[in-house]
Amino acid sequence: MAEVALLGFKPQLVVPGMKAEAAVQFYKAAFGAEEIGRVAHPKRKAEQECPLILSAELKIGSSLILVSDCFDAAGEDSAAAAGGGGIAFRLEAEDVDAAVKKAVAAGAEVMSEVSEEEGSLLGKVKDPFGVVWAIAAVGKKSLEPEA
Amino acid sequence: MAEVALLGFKPQLVVPGMKAEAAVQFYKAAFGAEEIGRVAHPKRKAEQECPLILSAELKIGSSLILVSDCFDAAGEDSAAAAGGGGIAFRLEAEDVDAAVKKAVAAGAEVMSEVSEEEGSLLGKVKDPFGVVWAIAAVGKKSLEPEA
Repeated sequence: MAEVALLGFKPQLVVPGMKAEAAVQFYKAAFGAEEIGRVAHPKRKAEQECPLILSAELKIGSSLILVSDCFDAAGEDSAAAAGGGGIAFRLEAEDVDAAVKKAVAAGAEVMSEVSEEEGSLLGKVKDPFGVVWAIAAVGKKSLEPEA
Repeated sequence: MAEVALLGFKPQLVVPGMKAEAAVQFYKAAFGAEEIGRVAHPKRKAEQECPLILSAELKIGSSLILVSDCFDAAGEDSAAAAGGGGIAFRLEAEDVDAAVKKAVAAGAEVMSEVSEEEGSLLGKVKDPFGVVWAIAAVGKKSLEPEA
């Protein structure tokens, strides 16, 4: 199979019970994490409810981790979808379709077909060892800091 | 509390059933992973049994991940100890004791006290969100490639 350009991945921690904010505060206190970006759920923001954290990006030392509230968008249960006790890996690819196809050819199982999500292509596979990989297009909108 | 220098972390996948080698091969096929280092269990190697993988370090794009066989050293069950479905985070610290103390002060729970393991200091904590952090001294021996 042809080479598929993968840029790297970030661990994503999906926190149940609306506790992503608490998790962010904990990682700041425990590991000196620096918050370098955050995207709240647009609908929740508009309704001025407690804003769901779609993705808060933290830097611990030289490493990056994403922290998200577990929420239900498009009928999807993020906690179940994340698997592995709420830890998934967000893998950036130049060609999401090709990256998903290559993973499946190697033995991964499709969890959600490649589709547009929050303005970017995203597909999810579970590998034979139970790890969930969310394969997303490079420069995904939700990883950009809020204005 | 004083600043504690943390260099960064790597996700560590603890694979049950002696399947770490299969996992390494899968990540090569699925994501073009490059193996940049491997440490086998010294005792198993000496006895010429099937060598347990203490730690294989893979590079996927620009990101690093450690893959380990789930094995029982010093009475420790790595699979149970890893938690989170076999995914833990290996955090490098200049001062392991200080890093563990700071995490505990912030609300983490000690899973194993700081002790010498494979020639390096290591302590394990579980955070309030169920994530296991193996806090290790910088330049841990088991992360160096085999000769």
